[in-house]
Amino acid sequence: MSTTDAALDLHPDRYFDSDPAIRRAARDIHDASSCLPLICPHGHVDPWLLASDAPFPEPTALLITPDHYVFRMLASQGVSMESMGVPTVDGTDVERDPRRIWQLFAEHFHLFLGTPTGAWLHHTLHELFGVRTPLAGSSAQRIYDQIAECLASPEFLPRALFERFRIEVLATTDGAADGLEPHRRINDSDWTGRVVPTFRPDALFRVASAAWPTALAALEQRQGSSIPTFAAFLDALVARRSYFASLGATATDHAVVTPLTRRLDVRVLDRIFADARAGRASAEDQSAFEAHMLIEMARMSTEDGLVMQLHAGSLRDHHAGILARFGMDKGADIPVVTEFTRNLQALLSEFGHDPRLTLILFTLDESTYARELAPLAGHYPAVRLGPPWWFHDSIEGMRRFREQTTETAGVFNTAGFNDDTRAFCSIPARHDLARRMDANFLGGLVARHVIGMSDAMMLGGELAYGLARRTYRFDRVPVVAA
Amino acid sequence: MSTTDAALDLHPDRYFDSDPAIRRAARDIHDASSCLPLICPHGHVDPWLLASDAPFPEPTALLITPDHYVFRMLASQGVSMESMGVPTVDGTDVERDPRRIWQLFAEHFHLFLGTPTGAWLHHTLHELFGVRTPLAGSSAQRIYDQIAECLASPEFLPRALFERFRIEVLATTDGAADGLEPHRRINDSDWTGRVVPTFRPDALFRVASAAWPTALAALEQRQGSSIPTFAAFLDALVARRSYFASLGATATDHAVVTPLTRRLDVRVLDRIFADARAGRASAEDQSAFEAHMLIEMARMSTEDGLVMQLHAGSLRDHHAGILARFGMDKGADIPVVTEFTRNLQALLSEFGHDPRLTLILFTLDESTYARELAPLAGHYPAVRLGPPWWFHDSIEGMRRFREQTTETAGVFNTAGFNDDTRAFCSIPARHDLARRMDANFLGGLVARHVIGMSDAMMLGGELAYGLARRTYRFDRVPVVAA
Amino acid sequence: MSTTDAALDLHPDRYFDSDPAIRRAARDIHDASSCLPLICPHGHVDPWLLASDAPFPEPTALLITPDHYVFRMLASQGVSMESMGVPTVDGTDVERDPRRIWQLFAEHFHLFLGTPTGAWLHHTLHELFGVRTPLAGSSAQRIYDQIAECLASPEFLPRALFERFRIEVLATTDGAADGLEPHRRINDSDWTGRVVPTFRPDALFRVASAAWPTALAALEQRQGSSIPTFAAFLDALVARRSYFASLGATATDHAVVTPLTRRLDVRVLDRIFADARAGRASAEDQSAFEAHMLIEMARMSTEDGLVMQLHAGSLRDHHAGILARFGMDKGADIPVVTEFTRNLQALLSEFGHDPRLTLILFTLDESTYARELAPLAGHYPAVRLGPPWWFHDSIEGMRRFREQTTETAGVFNTAGFNDDTRAFCSIPARHDLARRMDANFLGGLVARHVIGMSDAMMLGGELAYGLARRTYRFDRVPVVAA
Repeated sequence: MSTTDAALDLHPDRYFDSDPAIRRAARDIHDASSCLPLICPHGHVDPWLLASDAPFPEPTALLITPDHYVFRMLASQGVSMESMGVPTVDGTDVERDPRRIWQLFAEHFHLFLGTPTGAWLHHTLHELFGVRTPLAGSSAQRIYDQIAECLASPEFLPRALFERFRIEVLATTDGAADGLEPHRRINDSDWTGRVVPTFRPDALFRVASAAWPTALAALEQRQGSSIPTFAAFLDALVARRSYFASLGATATDHAVVTPLTRRLDVRVLDRIFADARAGRASAEDQSAFEAHMLIEMARMSTEDGLVMQLHAGSLRDHHAGILARFGMDKGADIPVVTEFTRNLQALLSEFGHDPRLTLILFTLDESTYARELAPLAGHYPAVRLGPPWWFHDSIEGMRRFREQTTETAGVFNTAGFNDDTRAFCSIPARHDLARRMDANFLGGLVARHVIGMSDAMMLGGELAYGLARRTYRFDRVPVVAA
Repeated sequence: MSTTDAALDLHPDRYFDSDPAIRRAARDIHDASSCLPLICPHGHVDPWLLASDAPFPEPTALLITPDHYVFRMLASQGVSMESMGVPTVDGTDVERDPRRIWQLFAEHFHLFLGTPTGAWLHHTLHELFGVRTPLAGSSAQRIYDQIAECLASPEFLPRALFERFRIEVLATTDGAADGLEPHRRINDSDWTGRVVPTFRPDALFRVASAAWPTALAALEQRQGSSIPTFAAFLDALVARRSYFASLGATATDHAVVTPLTRRLDVRVLDRIFADARAGRASAEDQSAFEAHMLIEMARMSTEDGLVMQLHAGSLRDHHAGILARFGMDKGADIPVVTEFTRNLQALLSEFGHDPRLTLILFTLDESTYARELAPLAGHYPAVRLGPPWWFHDSIEGMRRFREQTTETAGVFNTAGFNDDTRAFCSIPARHDLARRMDANFLGGLVARHVIGMSDAMMLGGELAYGLARRTYRFDRVPVVAA
Repeated sequence: MSTTDAALDLHPDRYFDSDPAIRRAARDIHDASSCLPLICPHGHVDPWLLASDAPFPEPTALLITPDHYVFRMLASQGVSMESMGVPTVDGTDVERDPRRIWQLFAEHFHLFLGTPTGAWLHHTLHELFGVRTPLAGSSAQRIYDQIAECLASPEFLPRALFERFRIEVLATTDGAADGLEPHRRINDSDWTGRVVPTFRPDALFRVASAAWPTALAALEQRQGSSIPTFAAFLDALVARRSYFASLGATATDHAVVTPLTRRLDVRVLDRIFADARAGRASAEDQSAFEAHMLIEMARMSTEDGLVMQLHAGSLRDHHAGILARFGMDKGADIPVVTEFTRNLQALLSEFGHDPRLTLILFTLDESTYARELAPLAGHYPAVRLGPPWWFHDSIEGMRRFREQTTETAGVFNTAGFNDDTRAFCSIPARHDLARRMDANFLGGLVARHVIGMSDAMMLGGELAYGLARRTYRFDRVPVVAA
């Protein structure tokens, strides 16, 4: 990335260590893996994008307004979210001129120096839109025009990009009660792109939340019947999982602050569920309920084969004012200390050695990599380690992940890369960075004579493609729609 | 540093990575930033040093006896603090012969191999005193003579060194009730050196401490009136802050074990204050009071513009016997796990988005860098990250800080360097090391093609000078004395 | 390590950074230290091995079945422990054909790519058994034959290997009530190898455990008298420590989940001990008792001079099913967050400045290295830091340990290396890796001009030999048997 240098340049050895022995090995390993298709087993791309295949809007609405990685950084330096055009919950007016927002963004582009967001934007500008001038205040409008022109052409339609990006499969993330209309449309269309849903039932487990009645009502409507008891609730979840699988889903996803797992007595569950329906469930009830439901999800996974993903440790909406004014996912989620060893013991004691379960763990607390996660993955057949998540989906974050997990868990207990993005256009940039950092890690092992080059080449392919494909079971025969 | 090598050498590429591509870039970046003046926005230099401008005492009293970084290391290897001349609280006799102490120090100089204290001492001996022989038992007395001779000359008077070091501004740290006599004298003198106080009211917030009545009495005496109520207490703090600002202060400083922030009801505050005056405040009262006062300090900062510094996580005086015999600050402060995400939520919910507040966070718990601090700084406009503190003010500590914060917070949410030292003569050595490590970090980004060279040069200047100057508001028009 | 490359190669520069300046320095430092004898001050080798000097069994029983580092990795990828021949508690049949197990192991050898277990196995195969073909399914049986042939020759008898490995002293780990029969035999034999016991009384402190009565009974039987009171219990421990010392022991070892230290009133101790004898001690009693006994152990160490080792933070037997089926030490021990600063305060306040005590701390929670352990070791004369333990006894683990402890604690507050292994044949491989990583760390300091080469050579010898020898007091005159 360059904000003041003469030309926007994308170096062929970018991100590799500069030591010649490492770089040479990394380059060879990367050359071999860079041609492999992209597996995108976890992310937040809107499936309607590919269902409708409508042209992307102009550059600001594509790259800035919806991306909290971008506007949170400007906000942290005093650029208001209103001036960045982030829409308000109550519809209060915010900046609407995309060119003014783009200009503001360009003038602050130096804030991203040394960040992964900077690297992804740089890659996207250079590779996708052919930009060759560094983004800055003086070049902002010219670059805006250049991107806008691209977006108007048929090669920049979503499905065309999906193919250009060589995406083999893309998983979206969808609420448990979602009808998956866009997925049905894609399945029913002539287009052969593989876009699959992921079952995310979090909202249904937050029984003390004001939004829970709505979430349950949506599930009842989708099922076409009332869900009066906990037993009926479990039945509905099984049915929904089955529906998701019928549209190609291979995985579920679960987000919790604390990854506590603990079985509850069925009478307690009945009581909590009844209290929740009456709007009386407490925060303690919810914690206990979530802890139990994670075990239920593992049990259902052993039966329907859906891979279970667990994202733990993000304290959402740290600033109440931001939540009230702009809503969720606005860059105000802050990680907290996370404990896995004791919290997961109940679930793993039941299902950790069950060959039917795959449980992929994600953390924002890197101190758990070597201390807890790698030892768990190095013991339990069910456990795999998800790639460095969110803030750690970065050059140094990936380095720390590999350095702190490989020696205990090995490479084969990790789940490959996922881009976890809602920014469709950034997908190639993210995979490029990840593949380079994995190649660089392996190149370092080769240069230090820890492993040989042919093993490194094999592992490079696994990290870029094989592990994600197999861990998420995309290699198994797809479930046929009912 | 060298204890057994033939000559004391200060390599021009010291601390830089040896990889030629990184070193080359680091050297260029450092060459450009090394000529910038020093900003010293936080430290513990005795202001009387510069107010009186008296000659420094002999080498041992300058470099060893007052520096707990030095004598704690010898103590940890069984060299008694008495034999190092550390004065006792009760006046029990300790070693008084500075040459014997110096000899003991020199014979144990190998203990500092690979430590920042070793690097600073090495730099100070070589650059300030022109020593060219490695310090060891055999050379100890000769080097003592050489330093003593230097100290006797006018070029080694404190103000002369201040100018030789090219210090643009030096902030001291001063109790809230302090009269700031030395700062007044400096202001009133012909000397143009900028030496400013920093407002540190910790002692007044420790309402359960045996020393609190004395601290309050000192404040009352300074104010010239009784402080019977919590409201009067707040008024007195506002007045003192204003007085500090009138002498050039731009910042406050707050040290806590746990950075809890939480508002108390005014009746609870009145009750705690009354109990404290009666000597009846409990440890719980104190925790609650400190948590509330941090929010009050943030509020006052929004009004008077003083930058707020928070140093959290040091458990002071771990060994009761050392405290009783030698007093505070004797190398017996040990860090503890520190939590910021939840603890700071109350303060940040009120003032985190207030453009008038700057809150600089310091930690001794590096696991919070990537997990909590960088995400907080990458969201809240008020938050900046202080440089690696205390034990982490070191080569590897700085590397970890940049590697673990930059990708999420960027460079511009960090506060530049501060030397945090009471050892005036070590100031250039500390800035030299910091500037080199920052240049090396940036050089690594250049060598890996993450950023371009001209951006790296710009960032190098920011890290060496610009960020500290602006974050601590030394660039704003100084407040005129009332 | 190489699983698919043409030849099994052991590169002379293995594990060193590839940067030429670092590698050159590391090689010189390592060349000088690699000839030093091995000090093995802590480990789990069965002393009968050297007492009886019987030939090793065939390859599988030597290298695979007893090594949980090996079979846990295969288990984590779905290879059952039964098929690896791990014996069951109830004697249920498991695979007994060593060649089938070896074949399975060889076919999964790629799982160890990038792990220390892989590096140790590679070194052992190459150096000890002269294997030159990469281990894989196709080569498995040939390599099995080659190792089996070696094991049949007199040069591969345990004592011959002890001498070939140049082990100066080997400490075993032994229960407090152990009669130390093999140590007596070795002492009484003509063989001059130094094999000493280590006093490990953990089982006697777990007063709430179902196994405690048996442990106490064993102690009573060994003492030849009843132990009816806590006072008698302390007397018995003193006597046992003395017996261990009479057979050359220089150290004790203590394993706890939480390193809490806290004195109990003698009446509470009497009550707990009585309750324990009656089978009524609670989990809280045990925690309190263990916390007290750590202080008693420190006190006894000040009297009998045994060095005290503390291994904290492993939650043993995470999976109840594995414990029930296969027993302890089967790769199911998972680390937890560990706190030292507050937990050790009571012990260190009493004995941390006592020149007679050496307390070596081991952790599985690397976040404590820089935050707690290095500051404690850099203050308390009694404290030394044990080498990276268990999962962290690895290339990257050692790098992190030195980078995170040296700047605060220096080199001389660390305890040198120990291999901590029950796998006798892996001892040279483990010391080789450790010496190389220490040489590499020092080489990095030289290359960055932090220390000079002659200091680095001196420190290299200390890390490889001197520190372990002196910290564990093997340099002192051995205690003469009573």
